[in-house]
Amino acid sequence: MRVYLDNAATTAMDDRVIEAMLPFMKLHYGNPSSVHSHGREVRSAIEKARKKVAELLNATPTEIFFTSGGTEADNTAIVCGIETHGITHAITSPIEHHAVLHTLEECAKKGKVKLSILDVNEKGEIDLGQLEALLKANPKSFISLMHANNEIGNINDLNRIGELARTYDAFFHSDTVQTMGHFVHDLKTLPVDAIVAGAHKFHGPKGSGFLYVRKDKKIHPFIHGGAQERNMRGGTENVIGIVGIAKALELAYEDMGSHRKHIESLKTRFMEALKENIPGVAFNGLSADLNKSLYTVLNVSLPPSEENRGMLLFNLDLNGISASGGSACSSGATVGSHVLKAIGHDPERESVRFSFSRFNTAEEVDYTVEKLKELYGVTV
Amino acid sequence: MRVYLDNAATTAMDDRVIEAMLPFMKLHYGNPSSVHSHGREVRSAIEKARKKVAELLNATPTEIFFTSGGTEADNTAIVCGIETHGITHAITSPIEHHAVLHTLEECAKKGKVKLSILDVNEKGEIDLGQLEALLKANPKSFISLMHANNEIGNINDLNRIGELARTYDAFFHSDTVQTMGHFVHDLKTLPVDAIVAGAHKFHGPKGSGFLYVRKDKKIHPFIHGGAQERNMRGGTENVIGIVGIAKALELAYEDMGSHRKHIESLKTRFMEALKENIPGVAFNGLSADLNKSLYTVLNVSLPPSEENRGMLLFNLDLNGISASGGSACSSGATVGSHVLKAIGHDPERESVRFSFSRFNTAEEVDYTVEKLKELYGVTV
Ligand SMILES: Cc1ncc(COP(=O)(O)O)c(C=O)c1O
Ligand SMILES: Cc1ncc(COP(=O)(O)O)c(C=O)c1O
Repeated sequence: MRVYLDNAATTAMDDRVIEAMLPFMKLHYGNPSSVHSHGREVRSAIEKARKKVAELLNATPTEIFFTSGGTEADNTAIVCGIETHGITHAITSPIEHHAVLHTLEECAKKGKVKLSILDVNEKGEIDLGQLEALLKANPKSFISLMHANNEIGNINDLNRIGELARTYDAFFHSDTVQTMGHFVHDLKTLPVDAIVAGAHKFHGPKGSGFLYVRKDKKIHPFIHGGAQERNMRGGTENVIGIVGIAKALELAYEDMGSHRKHIESLKTRFMEALKENIPGVAFNGLSADLNKSLYTVLNVSLPPSEENRGMLLFNLDLNGISASGGSACSSGATVGSHVLKAIGHDPERESVRFSFSRFNTAEEVDYTVEKLKELYGVTV
Repeated sequence: MRVYLDNAATTAMDDRVIEAMLPFMKLHYGNPSSVHSHGREVRSAIEKARKKVAELLNATPTEIFFTSGGTEADNTAIVCGIETHGITHAITSPIEHHAVLHTLEECAKKGKVKLSILDVNEKGEIDLGQLEALLKANPKSFISLMHANNEIGNINDLNRIGELARTYDAFFHSDTVQTMGHFVHDLKTLPVDAIVAGAHKFHGPKGSGFLYVRKDKKIHPFIHGGAQERNMRGGTENVIGIVGIAKALELAYEDMGSHRKHIESLKTRFMEALKENIPGVAFNGLSADLNKSLYTVLNVSLPPSEENRGMLLFNLDLNGISASGGSACSSGATVGSHVLKAIGHDPERESVRFSFSRFNTAEEVDYTVEKLKELYGVTV
């Protein structure tokens, strides 16, 4: 049995997404910037995709910019948000994705901003009081706080952060890569200035993402070149990627409720079985709290064990189970997770992030529990 | 009949490229950064692609970085080449693609470099004497001069420019988007520090490109995030794009000689027929000179005509023929070509760029000539 429980790293593409992309590989190959019929048919597909994304998020098409993924979208929001609005102070947390942390660190290194990093407690929670104090002392700050953490699943309260941002005239960017397609984002009411997406986290293609920037917080382009994306991003459009991300988001919204119910039941089943079967098991961050974490992620902390020390992921892999240590997208196997470090995770224990999608089954969960029991020498 | 003669804007994908990409849509969906088997099989495909590209260009795999296209690769080479090497003076020409011109202008606007723009004559040729004088006055400059122009097809002598660059210790970036896959680039002998590619110009997918940076001229990343591309470009890799660009380049190199012969015969046939049939026809830049221009591009200047003034592309389109005015990738229909302006093209005349690929036929060329004859009221 081969079990894929690493859906926070990337997901399998939905066949219907592939079907939607294929005509733009085989038939419609024009350059969307060309004015002739070969170009116009492709331009029209891109603008249809933009309209669909905007509609689902309750935004306007002129607020949606297609990018090569979540990372480019984060870089654009941060670098250009700071530059365009003449911002000199930025606030983030130590458990952001490297697409945010490294980009902000680079801005700080270049002397563009002073960077304040919020404290997190041992559950990975930030302190909104500390955030408010920083905003009070530094009006017109840039805030980058993620919607949900990709390793421990913690969900931030974007409404409360966004209200603080508005009170203190800050630019609020939120890395929504892990929640897009899994939760509803209503940009009419959500008080954010910029959010981002990567299609491959919700059964779309890798190398395709988008950036939303609120109308009244316009920013300059990050990649300079042609007039594509209304002068906001140079470069011939990744047409299949754009068609794919729109289709994937449409499918995600269509059945979000039933997918959520299914995935939540898998997460609960897994959690209960581990608590019952593995003495000393614990869950990192807020990932055991269904109301405060991604329903797609369970970060499991296992008791010290000679046989599995530094080998647990490898042992799981040998048993056909794909899961992850830190974040696949930000660190190799050899680098420890900056998130677990920030929450003071005991390095004697092994931590594994299991992450689920609508393609997973109860059988796969049960199989994984069995294998963990074997690896931890639990006999029934 | 529908005739596509806009291959410098973008090309139709080769079926074999699509075939190579499909398994990475349907089957192999792991994140290449994941250490488990789902990830490793994809990582291995990416590194195989990198090795193939390096091999074809006579470079080493560590010199090849995959990007979202030619534009991002140009931006990376320019912004990070200048920053990493502490360069304060840049040299370019007025007929570069906007991916180069706008990026350099942005660097100049931010006060990072002083920008010198070479003169071009009415054929679009630069003056190597002027380049040398500038290099002499400004050692350690950044040079960005394209291999071949995307509108008028002019080919620059990279060997002579590169020798000057080396003599005066300059960083030499060349935008090779229009020549990659159509000419051999041997990076063992070619004296360039950075070149770029966009897959969709040689029958690969849009939204996929690469950057070559010579080993001893290493640069910092442009997009910050995860450790992908050996810390040179954050972001989950566009796996299908990477597999696609490598396959497209492999196919291009495999049959480059016969493709060139075929396409050259179409260009010659077209040129001869126009000279014979349209009184007053002329060719912009060096595009009529087979030794000094892209064999894929013929930029045709047509005599003033009331019926076709501002309408020629539209009239061609009505007849099923897709061609282009300026560069599809850098200007909408309404903006005039900065290249034709720089070479002082008579605005009373209509200019059309016809560009060919190995998928075009003599029949299509003949049909286009017939239609142009009709549009220009030439009766036989
Ligand atoms: C929270 C978060 N932000 C950003 C990214 C980067 O997205 P991508 O790798 O698609 O560029 C990821 C995952 O990869 C993520 O989980
Ligand atoms: C000479 C040249 N440079 C750069 C580009 C930009 O490439 P892309 O649009 O694939 O990013 C193009 C065409 O689009 C081009 O013709």
